[in-house]
Amino acid sequence: MSPRIDLGPKPGLGYTANPLDRVSERRTDSTFLAAIASENRARLYLIAGESVILKNRGDTFDPLFTRTEADAFGALEPTIFLGLAEGTGRFAAGLSASTIETFRDDDQFLIKDLRSIATQGLVGPDHLAAIAEGKALLHWHARHQFCANCGAPSRPVHGGWRRDCAKCEVEHFPRTDPVVIMLASHGERCLLGRQARFAPGMWSCLAGFVEPGETIEDAVRRETREEAGISCGRVKYFASQPWPFPMSLMIGAHVEALSADIVIDRTELEDARWFEREEVIAMFLREHPDGLTTPPPIAIAHHIIRAWLEDGDYGFD
Amino acid sequence: MSPRIDLGPKPGLGYTANPLDRVSERRTDSTFLAAIASENRARLYLIAGESVILKNRGDTFDPLFTRTEADAFGALEPTIFLGLAEGTGRFAAGLSASTIETFRDDDQFLIKDLRSIATQGLVGPDHLAAIAEGKALLHWHARHQFCANCGAPSRPVHGGWRRDCAKCEVEHFPRTDPVVIMLASHGERCLLGRQARFAPGMWSCLAGFVEPGETIEDAVRRETREEAGISCGRVKYFASQPWPFPMSLMIGAHVEALSADIVIDRTELEDARWFEREEVIAMFLREHPDGLTTPPPIAIAHHIIRAWLEDGDYGFD
Repeated sequence: MSPRIDLGPKPGLGYTANPLDRVSERRTDSTFLAAIASENRARLYLIAGESVILKNRGDTFDPLFTRTEADAFGALEPTIFLGLAEGTGRFAAGLSASTIETFRDDDQFLIKDLRSIATQGLVGPDHLAAIAEGKALLHWHARHQFCANCGAPSRPVHGGWRRDCAKCEVEHFPRTDPVVIMLASHGERCLLGRQARFAPGMWSCLAGFVEPGETIEDAVRRETREEAGISCGRVKYFASQPWPFPMSLMIGAHVEALSADIVIDRTELEDARWFEREEVIAMFLREHPDGLTTPPPIAIAHHIIRAWLEDGDYGFD
Repeated sequence: MSPRIDLGPKPGLGYTANPLDRVSERRTDSTFLAAIASENRARLYLIAGESVILKNRGDTFDPLFTRTEADAFGALEPTIFLGLAEGTGRFAAGLSASTIETFRDDDQFLIKDLRSIATQGLVGPDHLAAIAEGKALLHWHARHQFCANCGAPSRPVHGGWRRDCAKCEVEHFPRTDPVVIMLASHGERCLLGRQARFAPGMWSCLAGFVEPGETIEDAVRRETREEAGISCGRVKYFASQPWPFPMSLMIGAHVEALSADIVIDRTELEDARWFEREEVIAMFLREHPDGLTTPPPIAIAHHIIRAWLEDGDYGFD
């Protein structure tokens, strides 16, 4: 099928384009880690839960701090080794919620949640992806101070990429939760839904966690059936995105709708309905008469919807 | 590119084709769960770590047990609600390692590890997928008896799909670890590797866990570079597979190799090298003069390799 519409230049997908060389095989090398951490050129991202501290440079913002600055700010353990950028170490460390608040009124700094940093483009895409990596790992450490196997305290090792239990000797690795996010369509119509927490007027793709014993394709069909009552057929993978809220892997797809009657699961969705292609184009271009919108480019849903608008029944012909 | 070779009928991919309706929205309904669990038609899979107990019916094996049988065998808590099959409940429960051993010499039963059940085709594909679902969840419960946030004991709720901590009130969900598994190729050659634990002579795709802050595509390129020193370009998603050892989601892909010189990470691989298409065909067909092979149909690697053999530079033309 030929393209239906050209929506102009494509913005990047948020939290991707991670430029760091993770050198994961060197995480076990404590001598290497200590050496690069102590270099003057080493830099850290400082994060407190959802909030990131940025240096205010006037018309730009710098998310990188030296070890000396991080120590002065009371950066917490563990320091996460994110990877190498041009041969120098990049790290992430946590700040306490109370510490980061002390910078709130200091105009040398900007304290901002990661979603807003992304949406407002306050740092470059390279930094955004690295901060997402750090935020996800710091969240994992914060919620995994104890061994789930025996209840004893666990401790971080390998630059923050593992936690070990001294008591039962189980090794714990960071978790990444695969989530399917999909656009069901049939001919000139697609299915969009609204969660109560969405911004007013915004409609998006349906989504849900992949479960044990399930393929990506089965999860796409199950979630669409459970949330909106729509039976689905063929599934076409689109792209993926790390989503650090708190630590998901978004797996984007298009799916062929085989039925039309919507039955909404109100515990998951505030609303769901079919949209004609012309209406979605207006939403995408922010020209809808009632102010309805689709998600911004930072979200993979934006790109999934755009591909359907541009390419038609994406992948099924 | 036109198909290069027709390798005959395609076997199914192991642990997929899960026929159960998970009715996940009803897991919170304890009245519903109790009612279907107490029905005479309810059936359980009984699993002890890697081992599954099957009823020996002479020329077939039956993995389903009644609640009465499960109780007599000392089935452990929690009972996992896997979903509905033709309106009746399917569950999984654990047996202790010592209990399952008492059946080892009883010819009414067969005690077998799940990999062998799959490879030998001892149960139908429907059962295999459901057992995979149960095994992954039971493993998760076994290793998550305590709250990782505070160290207190946690308890299973919602038919085994959540564990709650009464002390700090954190809710814990089953984890599923996304793993990329890929075939790097360039023209008439593809890259295969061997892990030391593989069967003698077997070569397969490279693989590794997707990390926080990383796309599927970046993980494919990173793992290929780290394990074999090969730079990669475009990535093409192939298919996915639940892999209950212990609880992974295998994400299969083809990837375009951009370099040729292999540098092996010996902590990950015993060996890796380029194979010409003709040699891989012989391995696939079990006709290699030195007895080299590719993995069996139960593994997604079999299907990834087959697609490359049949379709050429899969997806890049």
